[in-house]
Amino acid sequence: MALTDLGVYLVTGQELSVGRSTLEVVTKAVEGGINTVQLREKNMSTRELVALGKEVRRITKEYGVILIINDRVDVAMAVEADGVHLGQDDFPIEDARRLLGEDAIIGLSVDNAEEAAFAEELGVDYVGLGPIFKTSTKTDTGPLVGPEGIAEVVEKINIPVVAIGGINKHNAADVLKAGAHSIAVVTAITKAEDITKETRELVEIFKRYRR
Amino acid sequence: MALTDLGVYLVTGQELSVGRSTLEVVTKAVEGGINTVQLREKNMSTRELVALGKEVRRITKEYGVILIINDRVDVAMAVEADGVHLGQDDFPIEDARRLLGEDAIIGLSVDNAEEAAFAEELGVDYVGLGPIFKTSTKTDTGPLVGPEGIAEVVEKINIPVVAIGGINKHNAADVLKAGAHSIAVVTAITKAEDITKETRELVEIFKRYRR
Repeated sequence: MALTDLGVYLVTGQELSVGRSTLEVVTKAVEGGINTVQLREKNMSTRELVALGKEVRRITKEYGVILIINDRVDVAMAVEADGVHLGQDDFPIEDARRLLGEDAIIGLSVDNAEEAAFAEELGVDYVGLGPIFKTSTKTDTGPLVGPEGIAEVVEKINIPVVAIGGINKHNAADVLKAGAHSIAVVTAITKAEDITKETRELVEIFKRYRR
Repeated sequence: MALTDLGVYLVTGQELSVGRSTLEVVTKAVEGGINTVQLREKNMSTRELVALGKEVRRITKEYGVILIINDRVDVAMAVEADGVHLGQDDFPIEDARRLLGEDAIIGLSVDNAEEAAFAEELGVDYVGLGPIFKTSTKTDTGPLVGPEGIAEVVEKINIPVVAIGGINKHNAADVLKAGAHSIAVVTAITKAEDITKETRELVEIFKRYRR
Protein backbone atom coordinates (compact mmCIF):
# COMPACT_ATOMS: atom_id res chain seq x y z
CA MET A 1 0.00 0.00 0.00
CA ALA A 2 1.39 3.41 -0.94
CA LEU A 3 1.73 5.75 2.01
CA THR A 4 -1.06 8.13 1.02
CA ASP A 5 -3.61 5.70 -0.40
CA LEU A 6 -5.99 5.98 2.54
CA GLY A 7 -6.54 9.68 1.77
CA VAL A 8 -9.66 11.19 3.30
CA TYR A 9 -10.94 8.50 5.59
CA LEU A 10 -14.54 8.45 6.86
CA VAL A 11 -15.35 6.62 10.08
CA THR A 12 -19.11 5.99 10.22
CA GLY A 13 -21.55 6.03 13.12
CA GLN A 14 -25.26 5.96 12.44
CA GLU A 15 -25.94 7.46 15.87
CA LEU A 16 -23.83 10.46 14.83
CA SER A 17 -25.55 11.01 11.50
CA VAL A 18 -28.42 13.24 12.65
CA GLY A 19 -31.22 10.99 11.45
CA ARG A 20 -29.60 9.73 8.26
CA SER A 21 -28.63 6.11 7.71
CA THR A 22 -24.97 5.15 7.43
CA LEU A 23 -25.76 3.86 3.94
CA GLU A 24 -26.93 7.34 2.95
CA VAL A 25 -23.89 8.99 4.55
CA VAL A 26 -21.49 6.62 2.78
CA THR A 27 -23.23 7.02 -0.56
CA LYS A 28 -22.94 10.78 -0.39
CA ALA A 29 -19.35 10.72 0.84
CA VAL A 30 -18.40 8.36 -1.97
CA GLU A 31 -19.94 10.79 -4.45
CA GLY A 32 -17.82 13.52 -2.86
CA GLY A 33 -14.63 11.55 -3.50
CA ILE A 34 -13.92 9.91 -0.14
CA ASN A 35 -10.93 7.52 -0.34
CA THR A 36 -11.58 5.18 2.59
CA VAL A 37 -14.63 4.18 4.62
CA GLN A 38 -14.39 2.51 8.00
CA LEU A 39 -17.63 0.98 9.26
CA ARG A 40 -17.78 1.60 13.00
CA GLU A 41 -21.32 0.95 14.18
CA LYS A 42 -21.69 0.56 17.92
CA ASN A 43 -25.46 0.17 18.08
CA MET A 44 -26.14 -2.49 15.48
CA SER A 45 -26.58 -6.22 15.83
CA THR A 46 -23.97 -8.32 14.03
CA ARG A 47 -26.66 -9.34 11.56
CA GLU A 48 -27.48 -5.72 10.72
CA LEU A 49 -23.78 -4.90 10.47
CA VAL A 50 -23.11 -7.70 7.98
CA ALA A 51 -26.12 -6.67 5.86
CA LEU A 52 -25.00 -3.02 5.88
CA GLY A 53 -21.41 -4.05 5.19
CA LYS A 54 -22.43 -5.90 2.05
CA GLU A 55 -24.29 -2.87 0.71
CA VAL A 56 -21.41 -0.55 1.55
CA ARG A 57 -19.00 -2.99 -0.10
CA ARG A 58 -21.01 -2.83 -3.33
CA ILE A 59 -20.91 0.99 -3.42
CA THR A 60 -17.27 1.34 -2.35
CA LYS A 61 -16.16 -1.25 -4.88
CA GLU A 62 -17.98 0.57 -7.65
CA TYR A 63 -16.10 3.77 -6.83
CA GLY A 64 -12.74 2.17 -6.00
CA VAL A 65 -13.03 3.19 -2.34
CA ILE A 66 -11.20 1.24 0.38
CA LEU A 67 -13.50 -0.44 2.94
CA ILE A 68 -12.29 -1.17 6.45
CA ILE A 69 -14.37 -2.82 9.21
CA ASN A 70 -13.90 -1.79 12.82
CA ASP A 71 -12.99 -4.58 15.26
CA ARG A 72 -14.76 -7.55 13.61
CA VAL A 73 -12.47 -9.70 11.52
CA ASP A 74 -15.32 -12.08 10.71
CA VAL A 75 -17.53 -9.28 9.41
CA ALA A 76 -14.64 -8.06 7.26
CA MET A 77 -14.33 -11.56 5.81
CA ALA A 78 -18.07 -11.96 5.26
CA VAL A 79 -18.44 -8.68 3.37
CA GLU A 80 -15.07 -8.97 1.60
CA ALA A 81 -13.78 -5.71 3.02
CA ASP A 82 -10.22 -4.60 2.32
CA GLY A 83 -9.28 -4.87 5.97
CA VAL A 84 -9.95 -4.19 9.61
CA HIS A 85 -9.22 -1.46 12.08
CA LEU A 86 -8.37 -2.73 15.54
CA GLY A 87 -8.05 -1.12 18.95
CA GLN A 88 -5.49 -2.08 21.56
CA ASP A 89 -8.05 -4.38 23.26
CA ASP A 90 -9.50 -5.83 20.06
CA PHE A 91 -8.55 -8.90 18.09
CA PRO A 92 -4.82 -9.75 18.28
CA ILE A 93 -2.90 -8.48 15.24
CA GLU A 94 -1.12 -11.77 14.55
CA ASP A 95 -4.42 -13.69 14.53
CA ALA A 96 -6.06 -11.09 12.29
CA ARG A 97 -3.15 -11.34 9.86
CA ARG A 98 -3.35 -15.12 9.80
CA LEU A 99 -7.10 -15.08 9.10
CA LEU A 100 -7.14 -12.20 6.61
CA GLY A 101 -3.90 -12.86 4.74
CA GLU A 102 -0.97 -10.73 3.65
CA ASP A 103 -2.96 -8.52 1.27
CA ALA A 104 -5.45 -7.30 3.87
CA ILE A 105 -5.08 -3.83 5.35
CA ILE A 106 -4.79 -3.98 9.13
CA GLY A 107 -4.82 -0.75 11.10
CA LEU A 108 -4.25 -0.27 14.81
CA SER A 109 -5.22 2.64 17.07
CA VAL A 110 -2.29 4.19 18.92
CA ASP A 111 -1.94 7.11 21.32
CA ASN A 112 1.72 7.98 20.94
CA ALA A 113 5.04 7.31 19.22
CA GLU A 114 5.92 4.38 21.46
CA GLU A 115 2.69 2.51 20.66
CA ALA A 116 3.14 3.43 17.00
CA ALA A 117 6.61 1.89 16.89
CA PHE A 118 5.31 -1.26 18.53
CA ALA A 119 2.44 -1.40 16.03
CA GLU A 120 4.90 -1.22 13.17
CA GLU A 121 6.85 -4.13 14.65
CA LEU A 122 3.63 -6.15 14.82
CA GLY A 123 3.27 -5.73 11.08
CA VAL A 124 0.22 -3.49 10.86
CA ASP A 125 -0.28 -1.54 7.64
CA TYR A 126 -1.11 1.80 9.23
CA VAL A 127 -1.69 3.38 12.61
CA GLY A 128 -4.70 5.45 13.59
CA LEU A 129 -3.27 8.21 15.78
CA GLY A 130 -5.43 10.33 18.01
CA PRO A 131 -7.19 12.17 19.34
CA ILE A 132 -5.42 14.99 17.51
CA PHE A 133 -7.86 17.65 18.74
CA LYS A 134 -10.70 17.72 21.22
CA THR A 135 -13.55 15.49 20.04
CA SER A 136 -17.05 14.75 21.27
CA THR A 137 -17.11 11.30 19.64
CA LYS A 138 -14.78 9.56 22.05
CA THR A 139 -14.51 10.38 25.70
CA ASP A 140 -12.26 7.57 26.94
CA THR A 141 -9.13 8.81 25.22
CA GLY A 142 -5.63 9.69 26.29
CA PRO A 143 -4.22 13.24 26.11
CA LEU A 144 -4.54 15.24 22.87
CA VAL A 145 -1.85 14.45 20.31
CA GLY A 146 -1.87 17.76 18.45
CA PRO A 147 0.10 18.50 15.25
CA GLU A 148 3.42 18.26 17.16
CA GLY A 149 2.51 14.73 18.25
CA ILE A 150 1.79 13.78 14.63
CA ALA A 151 5.20 15.02 13.54
CA GLU A 152 6.86 12.97 16.28
CA VAL A 153 5.11 9.75 15.22
CA VAL A 154 5.68 10.33 11.49
CA GLU A 155 9.36 10.79 12.25
CA LYS A 156 9.53 7.52 14.16
CA ILE A 157 7.77 4.99 11.89
CA ASN A 158 7.66 4.00 8.23
CA ILE A 159 4.00 3.07 7.88
CA PRO A 160 1.17 5.53 7.16
CA VAL A 161 -0.20 7.64 9.97
CA VAL A 162 -3.95 8.21 9.85
CA ALA A 163 -4.76 11.18 12.07
CA ILE A 164 -8.13 11.11 13.85
CA GLY A 165 -10.03 13.12 16.44
CA GLY A 166 -11.64 16.51 15.98
CA ILE A 167 -10.40 16.97 12.42
CA ASN A 168 -12.45 19.14 10.05
CA LYS A 169 -11.88 21.43 7.09
CA HIS A 170 -10.65 24.25 9.33
CA ASN A 171 -7.73 22.32 10.83
CA ALA A 172 -7.09 19.58 8.22
CA ALA A 173 -4.27 21.57 6.57
CA ASP A 174 -2.37 21.77 9.88
CA VAL A 175 -2.71 18.02 10.33
CA LEU A 176 -1.36 17.34 6.84
CA LYS A 177 1.44 19.87 7.20
CA ALA A 178 2.46 18.06 10.39
CA GLY A 179 3.00 14.99 8.23
CA ALA A 180 -0.15 12.86 8.55
CA HIS A 181 -0.60 10.59 5.53
CA SER A 182 -4.36 10.47 5.85
CA ILE A 183 -7.07 12.40 7.67
CA ALA A 184 -9.88 10.49 9.34
CA VAL A 185 -13.11 12.27 10.18
CA VAL A 186 -16.34 11.27 11.83
CA THR A 187 -18.79 14.08 12.52
CA ALA A 188 -17.17 16.53 10.06
CA ILE A 189 -18.89 14.35 7.48
CA THR A 190 -21.62 12.43 9.33
CA LYS A 191 -23.12 15.62 10.73
CA ALA A 192 -22.52 17.82 7.66
CA GLU A 193 -25.63 19.32 6.15
CA ASP A 194 -24.33 18.70 2.63
CA ILE A 195 -22.19 15.57 2.97
CA THR A 196 -21.03 15.45 -0.65
CA LYS A 197 -19.93 19.09 -0.65
CA GLU A 198 -18.16 18.74 2.72
CA THR A 199 -16.33 15.65 1.52
CA ARG A 200 -15.30 17.40 -1.67
CA GLU A 201 -13.81 20.27 0.34
CA LEU A 202 -11.84 17.87 2.55
CA VAL A 203 -10.57 16.05 -0.53
CA GLU A 204 -9.43 19.36 -2.04
CA ILE A 205 -7.53 20.24 1.14
CA PHE A 206 -6.01 16.76 1.19
CA LYS A 207 -4.81 17.08 -2.40
CA ARG A 208 -3.31 20.50 -1.74
CA TYR A 209 -1.43 19.61 1.44
CA ARG A 210 -0.72 15.89 1.07
CA ARG A 211 2.86 14.79 1.64
CA MET B 1 -22.39 -35.25 14.22
CA ALA B 2 -24.29 -37.93 16.13
CA LEU B 3 -27.43 -36.63 17.78
CA THR B 4 -26.23 -36.91 21.36
CA ASP B 5 -22.60 -35.89 20.99
CA LEU B 6 -23.05 -32.51 22.65
CA GLY B 7 -24.07 -34.22 25.91
CA VAL B 8 -23.78 -32.06 29.00
CA TYR B 9 -23.06 -28.62 27.64
CA LEU B 10 -21.57 -25.86 29.80
CA VAL B 11 -22.13 -22.23 28.83
CA THR B 12 -19.58 -20.07 30.62
CA GLY B 13 -19.85 -16.61 32.13
CA GLN B 14 -17.08 -15.31 34.35
CA GLU B 15 -19.49 -12.79 35.92
CA LEU B 16 -21.64 -15.78 37.01
CA SER B 17 -18.80 -17.76 38.52
CA VAL B 18 -18.78 -16.28 42.03
CA GLY B 19 -15.22 -15.04 41.96
CA ARG B 20 -13.66 -17.88 40.02
CA SER B 21 -12.17 -17.46 36.55
CA THR B 22 -13.80 -19.11 33.56
CA LEU B 23 -10.56 -21.00 33.06
CA GLU B 24 -10.92 -22.50 36.53
CA VAL B 25 -14.60 -23.33 35.96
CA VAL B 26 -13.86 -25.02 32.64
CA THR B 27 -10.92 -26.97 34.03
CA LYS B 28 -13.05 -28.37 36.85
CA ALA B 29 -16.01 -29.11 34.58
CA VAL B 30 -13.73 -30.93 32.15
CA GLU B 31 -12.44 -33.04 35.04
CA GLY B 32 -16.06 -33.81 35.88
CA GLY B 33 -16.71 -35.16 32.39
CA ILE B 34 -18.40 -32.24 30.61
CA ASN B 35 -18.95 -32.96 26.89
CA THR B 36 -19.20 -29.46 25.42
CA VAL B 37 -18.05 -25.99 26.48
CA GLN B 38 -19.46 -22.83 24.99
CA LEU B 39 -17.47 -19.68 25.77
CA ARG B 40 -19.97 -16.90 26.32
CA GLU B 41 -18.17 -14.00 27.98
CA LYS B 42 -20.03 -10.72 27.85
CA ASN B 43 -17.61 -8.59 29.85
CA MET B 44 -14.28 -9.33 28.20
CA SER B 45 -12.41 -7.46 25.52
CA THR B 46 -11.91 -9.37 22.28
CA ARG B 47 -8.25 -9.64 23.13
CA GLU B 48 -8.98 -11.25 26.51
CA LEU B 49 -11.52 -13.56 24.89
CA VAL B 50 -9.04 -14.81 22.28
CA ALA B 51 -6.39 -15.40 24.95
CA LEU B 52 -8.87 -17.29 27.14
CA GLY B 53 -10.18 -19.20 24.12
CA LYS B 54 -6.72 -20.50 23.31
CA GLU B 55 -6.21 -21.76 26.86
CA VAL B 56 -9.65 -23.38 26.93
CA ARG B 57 -8.96 -24.95 23.53
CA ARG B 58 -5.83 -26.59 24.91
CA ILE B 59 -7.68 -28.11 27.87
CA THR B 60 -10.76 -29.17 25.91
CA LYS B 61 -8.65 -30.77 23.19
CA GLU B 62 -6.71 -32.74 25.75
CA TYR B 63 -9.95 -34.19 27.15
CA GLY B 64 -11.77 -34.57 23.81
CA VAL B 65 -14.32 -31.93 24.78
CA ILE B 66 -16.17 -29.94 22.09
CA LEU B 67 -15.48 -26.18 22.16
CA ILE B 68 -18.03 -23.71 20.82
CA ILE B 69 -17.62 -19.90 20.78
CA ASN B 70 -20.62 -17.67 21.28
CA ASP B 71 -21.33 -15.14 18.51
CA ARG B 72 -17.76 -14.47 17.24
CA VAL B 73 -16.86 -16.46 14.15
CA ASP B 74 -13.44 -14.80 14.03
CA VAL B 75 -12.63 -15.81 17.60
CA ALA B 76 -13.71 -19.38 16.81
CA MET B 77 -11.30 -19.38 13.86
CA ALA B 78 -8.45 -17.83 15.85
CA VAL B 79 -8.67 -20.36 18.67
CA GLU B 80 -9.53 -23.31 16.39
CA ALA B 81 -12.78 -24.02 18.17
CA ASP B 82 -15.11 -26.71 16.87
CA GLY B 83 -17.79 -24.19 16.06
CA VAL B 84 -19.95 -21.23 16.98
CA HIS B 85 -23.26 -20.65 18.69
CA LEU B 86 -25.28 -17.83 17.14
CA GLY B 87 -28.36 -15.91 18.19
CA GLN B 88 -31.08 -14.73 15.84
CA ASP B 89 -29.41 -11.29 15.59
CA ASP B 90 -25.85 -12.58 15.36
CA PHE B 91 -23.73 -13.45 12.36
CA PRO B 92 -25.75 -14.80 9.41
CA ILE B 93 -25.69 -18.62 9.24
CA GLU B 94 -24.79 -18.80 5.55
CA ASP B 95 -21.77 -16.50 6.06
CA ALA B 96 -20.66 -18.44 9.13
CA ARG B 97 -20.84 -21.70 7.17
CA ARG B 98 -18.85 -20.22 4.30
CA LEU B 99 -16.11 -18.96 6.63
CA LEU B 100 -15.96 -21.99 8.95
CA GLY B 101 -16.51 -24.80 6.45
CA GLU B 102 -18.70 -27.88 6.34
CA ASP B 103 -17.09 -29.60 9.32
CA ALA B 104 -17.72 -26.80 11.80
CA ILE B 105 -20.54 -27.10 14.31
CA ILE B 106 -22.97 -24.20 13.99
CA GLY B 107 -25.74 -23.83 16.55
CA LEU B 108 -28.59 -21.34 16.55
CA SER B 109 -30.78 -20.15 19.42
CA VAL B 110 -34.50 -20.70 18.85
CA ASP B 111 -37.59 -20.03 20.91
CA ASN B 112 -40.08 -22.44 19.36
CA ALA B 113 -40.78 -25.19 16.81
CA GLU B 114 -41.25 -22.75 13.94
CA GLU B 115 -37.84 -21.12 14.45
CA ALA B 116 -36.34 -24.58 14.93
CA ALA B 117 -37.69 -25.78 11.58
CA PHE B 118 -36.32 -22.68 9.89
CA ALA B 119 -32.94 -23.20 11.55
CA GLU B 120 -32.83 -26.75 10.21
CA GLU B 121 -33.52 -25.44 6.70
CA LEU B 122 -30.64 -23.00 7.08
CA GLY B 123 -28.32 -25.93 7.65
CA VAL B 124 -27.39 -25.45 11.29
CA ASP B 125 -26.06 -28.47 13.16
CA TYR B 126 -28.14 -28.05 16.30
CA VAL B 127 -30.61 -25.68 17.88
CA GLY B 128 -30.36 -24.20 21.35
CA LEU B 129 -33.93 -24.21 22.65
CA GLY B 130 -34.97 -22.14 25.63
CA PRO B 131 -35.59 -20.91 28.14
CA ILE B 132 -36.95 -24.27 29.30
CA PHE B 133 -37.48 -23.09 32.89
CA LYS B 134 -37.26 -19.78 34.67
CA THR B 135 -33.68 -18.48 34.67
CA SER B 136 -31.90 -15.54 36.21
CA THR B 137 -29.17 -15.52 33.55
CA LYS B 138 -31.24 -14.10 30.72
CA THR B 139 -34.06 -11.64 31.17
CA ASP B 140 -34.84 -10.71 27.55
CA THR B 141 -36.32 -14.07 26.64
CA GLY B 142 -39.58 -15.27 25.16
CA PRO B 143 -42.10 -17.41 27.10
CA LEU B 144 -40.90 -20.54 28.90
CA VAL B 145 -40.62 -23.59 26.66
CA GLY B 146 -41.09 -26.27 29.32
CA PRO B 147 -40.75 -30.04 28.72
CA GLU B 148 -43.85 -30.05 26.48
CA GLY B 149 -42.21 -27.46 24.23
CA ILE B 150 -39.10 -29.62 23.95
CA ALA B 151 -41.17 -32.59 22.85
CA GLU B 152 -42.87 -30.47 20.20
CA VAL B 153 -39.55 -29.27 18.73
CA VAL B 154 -37.92 -32.72 18.87
CA GLU B 155 -40.92 -34.07 16.97
CA LYS B 156 -40.58 -31.43 14.28
CA ILE B 157 -36.87 -31.44 13.38
CA ASN B 158 -34.08 -33.92 12.68
CA ILE B 159 -31.13 -32.07 14.19
CA PRO B 160 -30.12 -32.17 17.87
CA VAL B 161 -32.01 -30.07 20.36
CA VAL B 162 -29.88 -28.55 23.11
CA ALA B 163 -32.19 -27.49 25.92
CA ILE B 164 -31.14 -24.43 27.93
CA GLY B 165 -32.51 -22.19 30.66
CA GLY B 166 -32.89 -23.01 34.33
CA ILE B 167 -31.72 -26.61 33.95
CA ASN B 168 -30.07 -28.29 36.94
CA LYS B 169 -29.70 -31.76 38.43
CA HIS B 170 -33.22 -31.62 39.89
CA ASN B 171 -35.02 -31.14 36.57
CA ALA B 172 -32.51 -32.51 34.03
CA ALA B 173 -34.20 -35.92 33.89
CA ASP B 174 -37.52 -34.29 32.85
CA VAL B 175 -35.74 -32.39 30.09
CA LEU B 176 -34.11 -35.56 28.76
CA LYS B 177 -37.33 -37.57 29.06
CA ALA B 178 -39.03 -34.88 26.96
CA GLY B 179 -36.53 -35.70 24.21
CA ALA B 180 -33.73 -33.14 24.46
CA HIS B 181 -30.49 -34.49 22.98
CA SER B 182 -28.29 -32.36 25.17
CA ILE B 183 -28.64 -30.30 28.34
CA ALA B 184 -26.99 -26.91 28.54
CA VAL B 185 -26.35 -25.34 31.91
CA VAL B 186 -24.89 -22.10 33.10
CA THR B 187 -25.15 -21.37 36.81
CA ALA B 188 -25.84 -25.02 37.76
CA ILE B 189 -22.13 -25.43 37.10
CA THR B 190 -20.62 -21.93 37.25
CA LYS B 191 -22.09 -21.27 40.68
CA ALA B 192 -21.67 -24.80 42.07
CA GLU B 193 -19.53 -25.04 45.17
CA ASP B 194 -17.88 -28.22 43.91
CA ILE B 195 -17.91 -27.84 40.12
CA THR B 196 -16.35 -31.22 39.36
CA LYS B 197 -18.82 -33.09 41.57
CA GLU B 198 -21.81 -31.16 40.18
CA THR B 199 -20.71 -31.86 36.61
CA ARG B 200 -20.26 -35.54 37.40
CA GLU B 201 -23.82 -35.73 38.74
CA LEU B 202 -25.21 -34.05 35.62
CA VAL B 203 -23.24 -36.44 33.43
CA GLU B 204 -24.64 -39.39 35.38
CA ILE B 205 -28.20 -38.14 34.87
CA PHE B 206 -27.48 -37.57 31.18
CA LYS B 207 -26.20 -41.11 30.74
CA ARG B 208 -29.20 -42.57 32.52
CA TYR B 209 -31.89 -40.65 30.64
CA ARG B 210 -30.28 -39.89 27.27
CA ARG B 211 -32.33 -40.78 24.20
